[in-house]
Amino acid sequence: MSSAKISRVVVTPLAFADPPLLNVVGVHQPWALRAVVEVHTDDGVLGLGETYGDETHLARLEAVAARMPGTDPYDLNGLRRLVAEVLATGDGGAGASFGGMLDVDSASDTVFSPFEVACLDIQGHRAGVPVSDLLGGAVRDEVPFSGYLFYKWAGHPGAPDDEWGEALTPDQVVAQARRLVDGWGFGSLKLKGGVFPPDEECAAIEALREAFPDMPLRLDPNGAWTVPTSIEVARRLDGVLEYLEDPTPGIEGMAAVAAQSPLPLATNMCVIAMEHLPPAIAQDAVQVVLSDHHLWGGLRRSALLGGIADTWGLGLSMHSNSHLGVSLAAMVHLAAATPNLTYACDTHYPWKTQDVVEPGVLDFVDGSVKVPTTPGLGVTLDRDALGLLHEQYLECGVRRREDTVYMRSIEPGFSPRTASW
Amino acid sequence: MSSAKISRVVVTPLAFADPPLLNVVGVHQPWALRAVVEVHTDDGVLGLGETYGDETHLARLEAVAARMPGTDPYDLNGLRRLVAEVLATGDGGAGASFGGMLDVDSASDTVFSPFEVACLDIQGHRAGVPVSDLLGGAVRDEVPFSGYLFYKWAGHPGAPDDEWGEALTPDQVVAQARRLVDGWGFGSLKLKGGVFPPDEECAAIEALREAFPDMPLRLDPNGAWTVPTSIEVARRLDGVLEYLEDPTPGIEGMAAVAAQSPLPLATNMCVIAMEHLPPAIAQDAVQVVLSDHHLWGGLRRSALLGGIADTWGLGLSMHSNSHLGVSLAAMVHLAAATPNLTYACDTHYPWKTQDVVEPGVLDFVDGSVKVPTTPGLGVTLDRDALGLLHEQYLECGVRRREDTVYMRSIEPGFSPRTASW
Repeated sequence: MSSAKISRVVVTPLAFADPPLLNVVGVHQPWALRAVVEVHTDDGVLGLGETYGDETHLARLEAVAARMPGTDPYDLNGLRRLVAEVLATGDGGAGASFGGMLDVDSASDTVFSPFEVACLDIQGHRAGVPVSDLLGGAVRDEVPFSGYLFYKWAGHPGAPDDEWGEALTPDQVVAQARRLVDGWGFGSLKLKGGVFPPDEECAAIEALREAFPDMPLRLDPNGAWTVPTSIEVARRLDGVLEYLEDPTPGIEGMAAVAAQSPLPLATNMCVIAMEHLPPAIAQDAVQVVLSDHHLWGGLRRSALLGGIADTWGLGLSMHSNSHLGVSLAAMVHLAAATPNLTYACDTHYPWKTQDVVEPGVLDFVDGSVKVPTTPGLGVTLDRDALGLLHEQYLECGVRRREDTVYMRSIEPGFSPRTASW
Repeated sequence: MSSAKISRVVVTPLAFADPPLLNVVGVHQPWALRAVVEVHTDDGVLGLGETYGDETHLARLEAVAARMPGTDPYDLNGLRRLVAEVLATGDGGAGASFGGMLDVDSASDTVFSPFEVACLDIQGHRAGVPVSDLLGGAVRDEVPFSGYLFYKWAGHPGAPDDEWGEALTPDQVVAQARRLVDGWGFGSLKLKGGVFPPDEECAAIEALREAFPDMPLRLDPNGAWTVPTSIEVARRLDGVLEYLEDPTPGIEGMAAVAAQSPLPLATNMCVIAMEHLPPAIAQDAVQVVLSDHHLWGGLRRSALLGGIADTWGLGLSMHSNSHLGVSLAAMVHLAAATPNLTYACDTHYPWKTQDVVEPGVLDFVDGSVKVPTTPGLGVTLDRDALGLLHEQYLECGVRRREDTVYMRSIEPGFSPRTASW
């Protein structure tokens, strides 16, 4: 009989250099924030989780972490109650800002997530099985990812050009895609849009189609377009895209587009919590939902989303924010154990410049990551790297993701382009 | 790292004496059939599951069992594929006849279920935690059950009266309820209806209300009524029943009743598989779904049903067929780990006369069963009892549940009363 209890929980905020990736609300800041949680048990097992690093979110993580010692790493229902209790003492809201792009009513799922992943990591170590086994067993040995293309400047203003260089034209986007395909072997590509007028972004997609005739392609303007524009683009890119992601904001808007779109619509903006599913399904607003265990409240809630998608015949893909290796490992286990995850997953992983896990486990081969078969998540913290990224956090001065604020420091007249074309 | 594999799987058909309980399709036969599955691993762990014992179902269980050695008790996705492969070689259909009351398209969930439970029992033993912990942790220390009232004859024709005696009138139903409440402490009551004209069954409910002024009550005529009759009864029993279960057959019929019923409608007939949820929810046909891990494909699929009920704001209760202690243990763990299971569960347990688990773990106190806190399901097979119930199976001659056939052997003109009042 298990008597292991959680003895100590450590939350470490981290920062790693991030290129100036452009999006609908602005541009990535020079430093991306994350937090790694370490959950220790009194019998010497360590579980890991990773999440957003915005300061409001960090304060909540710390408040939960302080109350976890003495609890049971199997009692995830109790952990959820604990998170709710802690949040009830605060001022509400999501906490993790998502750069201004997403709006969730409650922080409970985002705060719960890294601790749940860490508890499952512990459960895997205790049972001697990988996390994918705790989720029902891997249905694939490796998980395919999609190469994530971004419009970007050559470098952050005032800093030297980064290794990726500028990508503002269709030719430059194709060059970036070539580098991602050559370097990581990706077998599908996604372009983050919402940066230029739709005609230019369609031209970039068409250039990608010409350069990669058989490559599944996706375009995600993060709600930059009106309903009529969205329908127009969907018709133009019919037969070119495998799906069109969040062309316009909101469930009602997406439903209006879906009613006339020949392309399936995907979302990581209008359906990002359980309570969005009933209205979205009732209106047939989206045909593909992007899961994200950071956002949806951990791996088991993401499995619930997977089951719902399967039951209602929705497609299922996976969303990514800028992340490190602990998140990637969790994403890989979840994807491996999700039979109906039929699309390649998104990942920002090639864009990160540093990591906190020991190398070798999560390498991309032919665009895929092998599912770790060792116990738990299968990744080990590199303590030196963790220390370095924490030092960077302390020194960088960034305390929240603010793509719009940063963009306005460069282009004072900038406004987010939501539904503006 | 786990290298434990399944080494041996044993399926044992069982029969235990069952009283002549009346229902919409006939009457319970003198012997109720069940099967216990034992899943052994090569490192000496034993997992248990329990399911229906109809011969078609048994043949499928045996076919799956024969192919399980060498597989991994954590690979539930693989087990599901194995079940699908085995069933693809057969002739389709549900196999477990449910006495003619239920109709499911596929046997995959029912065949998968006992093996999944046994694998979770193994996982619990290996991790040293109860199955409720594998399902997210118990949110309650004990699980409340509802006392299950049946119209019944005094005994099977040609046999002596059983210990329960006749229950054909409101007074006799109240007497039966008194015995269940006094003996087990039940805090809510359910009457299996569909046996007498609705006016008589309403009178029985009203007699129960008078005898037990504060007791939550339910009535389940198993689809015996037309839509107008169902609405009429719902109005008559408004304020008396906590829910009305399956007054009329089918999702469309239930939706028509629900549109005019002041009472919430529950079901274990028109929503009994994942594919029934989208149409039922779209039509608001039911307000309470009864989970049943035997029918819905195991404990994790039942947890998925629980998550769906939570997401769409459906009430959640739990269904029962005649069962033994392995099933009861699984039901208790599932109920314990389901936060939104707000109704007391159904159980036929008081009606069984024998069991196959060692006594003392699953006692009813104040109508509730304490959630076992020992590893796995927390129950141990009583080998002598298992042998005895298997002998009874071999000797009793019953090979499938046939309530209507048995009833017609006594009342030759009998027809199932589905939608007949």
